[in-house]
Amino acid sequence: MLVGSNFIGAERRTSEQKFRATDAATGKPLEPDFSEATADDVAAACLAARDAQKVFGSLALAARAAFLRLAADKIDALGDTLTMRAMQESGLPEARLKGERGRTVGQLRLFADEIEQGEWQQLRIDHAQTGTTPPKPDLRLRMIPLGPVAVFGASNFPLAFSVAGGDTASAFAAGCCVVVKGHPAHPGTSELVAGAIAEAVAECGLPAGVFSLVNGTSNALGEMLVKDPRIAAVGFTGSRAGGLALMKHAAGRPVPIPVYAEMSSINPVVLMPGRLEEAAEQLGQAYVGSLSLGAGQFCTNPGIVLAVAGDALDRFIQAAGETLKDVAAQTMLTAGIRRAFEEHTAALGKLPGAKLIGMGAEGSSACGRARVYTVGGNEFLAEPGFAAEVFGPSSIVIRCADLEQMTGILEGLEGQLTATLHMNEADHAEAEKFISILEQLAGRILANGWPTGVDVTHAMVHGGPFPATSDGRSTSVGTMAIGRFLRPVSYQDMPEALLPIALREGSCGVPRRVDGKLAI
Amino acid sequence: MLVGSNFIGAERRTSEQKFRATDAATGKPLEPDFSEATADDVAAACLAARDAQKVFGSLALAARAAFLRLAADKIDALGDTLTMRAMQESGLPEARLKGERGRTVGQLRLFADEIEQGEWQQLRIDHAQTGTTPPKPDLRLRMIPLGPVAVFGASNFPLAFSVAGGDTASAFAAGCCVVVKGHPAHPGTSELVAGAIAEAVAECGLPAGVFSLVNGTSNALGEMLVKDPRIAAVGFTGSRAGGLALMKHAAGRPVPIPVYAEMSSINPVVLMPGRLEEAAEQLGQAYVGSLSLGAGQFCTNPGIVLAVAGDALDRFIQAAGETLKDVAAQTMLTAGIRRAFEEHTAALGKLPGAKLIGMGAEGSSACGRARVYTVGGNEFLAEPGFAAEVFGPSSIVIRCADLEQMTGILEGLEGQLTATLHMNEADHAEAEKFISILEQLAGRILANGWPTGVDVTHAMVHGGPFPATSDGRSTSVGTMAIGRFLRPVSYQDMPEALLPIALREGSCGVPRRVDGKLAI
Repeated sequence: MLVGSNFIGAERRTSEQKFRATDAATGKPLEPDFSEATADDVAAACLAARDAQKVFGSLALAARAAFLRLAADKIDALGDTLTMRAMQESGLPEARLKGERGRTVGQLRLFADEIEQGEWQQLRIDHAQTGTTPPKPDLRLRMIPLGPVAVFGASNFPLAFSVAGGDTASAFAAGCCVVVKGHPAHPGTSELVAGAIAEAVAECGLPAGVFSLVNGTSNALGEMLVKDPRIAAVGFTGSRAGGLALMKHAAGRPVPIPVYAEMSSINPVVLMPGRLEEAAEQLGQAYVGSLSLGAGQFCTNPGIVLAVAGDALDRFIQAAGETLKDVAAQTMLTAGIRRAFEEHTAALGKLPGAKLIGMGAEGSSACGRARVYTVGGNEFLAEPGFAAEVFGPSSIVIRCADLEQMTGILEGLEGQLTATLHMNEADHAEAEKFISILEQLAGRILANGWPTGVDVTHAMVHGGPFPATSDGRSTSVGTMAIGRFLRPVSYQDMPEALLPIALREGSCGVPRRVDGKLAI
Repeated sequence: MLVGSNFIGAERRTSEQKFRATDAATGKPLEPDFSEATADDVAAACLAARDAQKVFGSLALAARAAFLRLAADKIDALGDTLTMRAMQESGLPEARLKGERGRTVGQLRLFADEIEQGEWQQLRIDHAQTGTTPPKPDLRLRMIPLGPVAVFGASNFPLAFSVAGGDTASAFAAGCCVVVKGHPAHPGTSELVAGAIAEAVAECGLPAGVFSLVNGTSNALGEMLVKDPRIAAVGFTGSRAGGLALMKHAAGRPVPIPVYAEMSSINPVVLMPGRLEEAAEQLGQAYVGSLSLGAGQFCTNPGIVLAVAGDALDRFIQAAGETLKDVAAQTMLTAGIRRAFEEHTAALGKLPGAKLIGMGAEGSSACGRARVYTVGGNEFLAEPGFAAEVFGPSSIVIRCADLEQMTGILEGLEGQLTATLHMNEADHAEAEKFISILEQLAGRILANGWPTGVDVTHAMVHGGPFPATSDGRSTSVGTMAIGRFLRPVSYQDMPEALLPIALREGSCGVPRRVDGKLAI
């Protein structure tokens, strides 16, 4: 069923150099061979995207939405075939991958609705004013697609942040053609999803260059893609090193382009004294549930917890330690990620002041064993290594001397995707100060929850200041993501017949700002 | 009256190293000495901005708007003192500078209105859904300021793109403190305007760090400012070399930051055959008016005109040549700009195929003499030097073989601020194709006008693909510019009492997207 080729528009290309996926649980190679994309393949994919861009970018919105819906239907129809392959390649459990498929197709359908809702076009009309000196021209503004987008699939969400993930969905929604660099850990999953998208492209009568997929195991492949002159923007979810490399390639191009890289975050969780006092045990249990979810392989994993040292925090730590014992070992995504997890946690355990307070059950050599450390506030501040992201089910509880020290620690952190406050009403006065600190720190602030779990809605921000992302001005989850792949164009004194339809006189069914005032 | 100091928040600092402004018309140095800002001054200004940011960024919108209005009033009240100093320093005529003052204060007032209108906050509310699996949390989104912004004053608009220009106005409107690097060609003008802003800061009871001005003649000063860790974004209008240098500094920081640099553009003007045939002479006259306006020292100067060779184009060229003779020489902004203009036009005249068709009147050694060249389409395509920006009153008419060659030339151009089509109804069918090319090329498309003149309105885009700007996703003129200095934050399950007021239940007087639907 799988053929292992690259999708270069309508062409299915193979090459001499091959690689295979690995069964995450057993470490054994999986059939079939996949072709490493060549430099020619990358260039051909980008050229096809450029050639398709004019047609796709100016498609009627209903047609663009229909394409996304058809792609969603076709991905959904892959059913168990997709789930089974993704399970083998990622080691993630069946229920999670079924849920992730639902999230992926739901996301495509949400963006289809968003396309038609039309507000993303930011339509503005300023009518001419002949009475002023000098007279003012007629000006009309809309957003147009940036051009072909390179999307890098992530290993930890083989569906929702991969070939048809959030970046692809939002780029398509914006009217941009997409060239995906598939993640080499799940090429079979990528091929299945790419096949569904390519079918949707063909059935909608779109130019084949609207979508391509290039596979490979080398960093050079990604570099070629980012440096291709036809690529206008980049979406990436992955490691900090990977994201920084892409940023460098993009900034060094003759024509620099935007990079939206979601890179690294330790997602601080603050336990305010009132809430901690009343619910220490319950919070300790929930904490372990969040940090071990999906073997801790989430960008929003709660990597550090901050609270004032004392009896209540001791009870929290005690409860976390007890709960940890019952956490089953889970297969990690790749042997490389598992090895890095072991190395990073071993190094963490040796940092001055680090104390291991508990571990989850031991599993196979493919598994990550959950663990929690504690450290004093002074020790945390003295050793930058404590604030480095450990990808996997590991977290640190910081015993702060007082709220002032906690404030200092938070103010010294790098940019984050999320920051969380646990509090009760007695904590509100203090919490208000913390919120203004957390706003500077993160893209999403949670009250009394846990950061794992990123809903795909209108008001979601999955983003944040560097290095959480390369560009904190946007989000990679939720409908606001469409704005990342757009730019404004203004039409001055353009005859009505030559204006884009949405900018002509009379209602277009989409809210517009007309002479500064919202008109519906 | 002028003291020549730097504005470091509330402090007026002098240094040992001095420089002077030059009278643009006479080349003579002007009183008084101005102090070159030191590394300490830059650091102190950025620190003051950082310390003021929390208060300024969370100010009630009415208070922020009041500050902009007061600054506008105070700049307006500078009256002739400001105009006279700006005339000396820039060589620009009185009427132009009075108009520019009006534009500058009008811009501040427009942004004050925009702040209160509130749509820029992009408020979104998604209510919790308990019936879904998993249940959906309550999510609420708003835009917050990025942090302190470094603004680089431009030489060609000593008021409207300088200390209190568009970048400063939009950064203030977004709630960002501003550190201006004043342009060394007009330090006196800068000091007068800075004094007005500083007074407004003080009278509004704002922390003094909301605004600073550092002066100097070295590139190192700008580099220090862009590299300061407290600076969160950069606004720049100037040369391509200058903008590229700032982009490099910003990308190389430990924490990279966005740079909005408006750099270089030759603003192609297309004369469609029908319109050219009926109005060749009139167009030729208007062309010369546009290219010589303000001694051609506009980012939107029409640098190239494209038309199909033939009798009508000959009439256009003839009319342009005749009109040129009556163009008075005008003082250029600086001796350096004048020298570069002479060098670039001399080089242009020697390019293979270039033919000078006319010049304006000769003036003093401080003046730029308007000139127009022609070149054949093939020669233009063969020599990249024809497409380089010449800053000043110079332009090239390209005699294209046919519309196909014209299309090829347009598709090969770099990104532009503007692109213009002159057409009549007979041209509409062909024009439609050109518009879709011009959309890819530029941020603003004009019909039957001239690109000089950039209205400050809601639907204006003064931006465009690289290298017109460093970042085509925004505009530096018009109310949409406020979005450049914002980033989204989402609040999840936040108790009502701790939510920003605009995100609480019940109307806040600003349109919001509630559960995906626009609510007013």
